Amino acid sequence: MELPPEAIGSVLDRWPVAVLSTSGDRGPHAVPIVFARARGALWSPIDGKPKRGGELARVRHIRRDPRVSLLLSHYEEDWERLWWLRVDGEAEIRTAPPQVSGGDEAAAVAALRRKYPQYSRVPVVGSDALLLRVVITAERSWCASEAGSRALVAYLSRGG
Amino acid sequence: MELPPEAIGSVLDRWPVAVLSTSGDRGPHAVPIVFARARGALWSPIDGKPKRGGELARVRHIRRDPRVSLLLSHYEEDWERLWWLRVDGEAEIRTAPPQVSGGDEAAAVAALRRKYPQYSRVPVVGSDALLLRVVITAERSWCASEAGSRALVAYLSRGG
Repeated sequence: MELPPEAIGSVLDRWPVAVLSTSGDRGPHAVPIVFARARGALWSPIDGKPKRGGELARVRHIRRDPRVSLLLSHYEEDWERLWWLRVDGEAEIRTAPPQVSGGDEAAAVAALRRKYPQYSRVPVVGSDALLLRVVITAERSWCASEAGSRALVAYLSRGG
Repeated sequence: MELPPEAIGSVLDRWPVAVLSTSGDRGPHAVPIVFARARGALWSPIDGKPKRGGELARVRHIRRDPRVSLLLSHYEEDWERLWWLRVDGEAEIRTAPPQVSGGDEAAAVAALRRKYPQYSRVPVVGSDALLLRVVITAERSWCASEAGSRALVAYLSRGG
């Protein structure tokens, strides 16, 4: 069964982590990301510091092929409560100097700060920062049972 | 920092879930899987029942492009304890009729039964079952801190 359609937005707003899959040089490539919704897109901060081997793999991949997939999923020993939500999208890399305000990038940084209390201690984006922007083109979900679906809805309705 | 090299085998043996990324028709595709190590490969059961739209997407993708990526990762609110392990590999689809014994497929099913107590209640593979077999070609890991690395090693040393 699928997740309740009315829950999808809350899952995207509240679930803290996703796996970002991109098309790499040697096949698919995946990395966990944090993300937030703002201005009709999903945004994820990217540390802009040069890495071993140059630009971050996900940035290099997306510049060449913007098609990405984000998988949000839950695992626990009770397999009746498993679920996942996959969003496919078109990604782009935006520059996000911290001093810029008012634009999409500032809204994205604000949304990330609201979602993650951790950003009260660490900067969302550094001085060389980039932001990944993903416009959703398709969604697909799966849930093992009604009980699992209800447990997720209960989780989403707590706090926040 | 990376995970301790001596912990990689235990992570692959003990961590219960991975995200399998394949190259899809419209970009990267990802789905959570359970898996176990046996006979020098990672194995994941695939429900062989016909799906909406025919063969399961991951099966169709792998038959066309065997390159896959498996991401094992941990998220918690304390970002010092984040880690991930990505294994890239070459995948193939094996047929696994439950009555076959002695071969790689039987060893894979036995390893899945040992790893997941859930399989005492549900069959590992049904009558039309397939098994995904992944031979690891590359590994890469990341860990946020020494404390996170120690927490993971402590988790792995408990039980099993």
